[in-house]
Amino acid sequence: MSLNGTYDPDNIFAKILRGEIPSAAVYEDDHILSFMDAFPQSKGHTLVIPKVPSRNLLDTDPDILARVTAQTQIITRAVHEAFEPDGITITQFNGAPAGQTVFHLHFHIIPRYTDSALGAHAGGQMADFEELTAQAAKIRQKLPE
Amino acid sequence: MSLNGTYDPDNIFAKILRGEIPSAAVYEDDHILSFMDAFPQSKGHTLVIPKVPSRNLLDTDPDILARVTAQTQIITRAVHEAFEPDGITITQFNGAPAGQTVFHLHFHIIPRYTDSALGAHAGGQMADFEELTAQAAKIRQKLPE
Repeated sequence: MSLNGTYDPDNIFAKILRGEIPSAAVYEDDHILSFMDAFPQSKGHTLVIPKVPSRNLLDTDPDILARVTAQTQIITRAVHEAFEPDGITITQFNGAPAGQTVFHLHFHIIPRYTDSALGAHAGGQMADFEELTAQAAKIRQKLPE
Repeated sequence: MSLNGTYDPDNIFAKILRGEIPSAAVYEDDHILSFMDAFPQSKGHTLVIPKVPSRNLLDTDPDILARVTAQTQIITRAVHEAFEPDGITITQFNGAPAGQTVFHLHFHIIPRYTDSALGAHAGGQMADFEELTAQAAKIRQKLPE
């Protein structure tokens, strides 16, 4: 089953974690990286991933999941303060039929604005990198010390 | 802002927690209740909620969130074993503009099947209660002892 496959160390988030591909980083510690989605569905679309390899929610170590979800809450609060969206959708896709396109566990933090529709997931245009780094800086300013 | 509103103790999940409305329960402990979504988007659509009141991810106590997400992982694995979907989408909506319809924190576990489209969120037909209790029983059989 596709949900129980082998981790591919050449997926794009693994490359970001190794520094082979740049990302607009929001937060980093020994276990977690958070960065702006390069194909944002809305302004402030942020990702949170663990550093250790796992494909999805099924094969993730529970202690790692706890770190990821705790940090997702903290970053969601900062995204809320930074952009003041009208809503925020959290999604986590498991398997291609569920919408997963990168097979390294990740949580999406997607701000919603009543005056603008959502873009396509991983389908639209790549965002301007300077714009993403500016958004990341805005979120970082709202993170707790 | 709608994301920072006051908890309404008469929301439908609060009524389920008080036993005023029946639910097809999958799991319960001192802190958590999991039950089948009465308006399922797919076969096996399951919800996980904390017992203590909170509206969304922003106002939830981090220790409670940790319990909810840990149990969400355990139940997701059981849903996977019970129904063998091709994918599973996890969603958590914050605020009406993000798709939230019940203002008590909840995580959706939504199985995806390549041969069937997803139903509308909270828009479709109410499921047959006996069918939901049968699904809940199937998931419970796959939960760890």
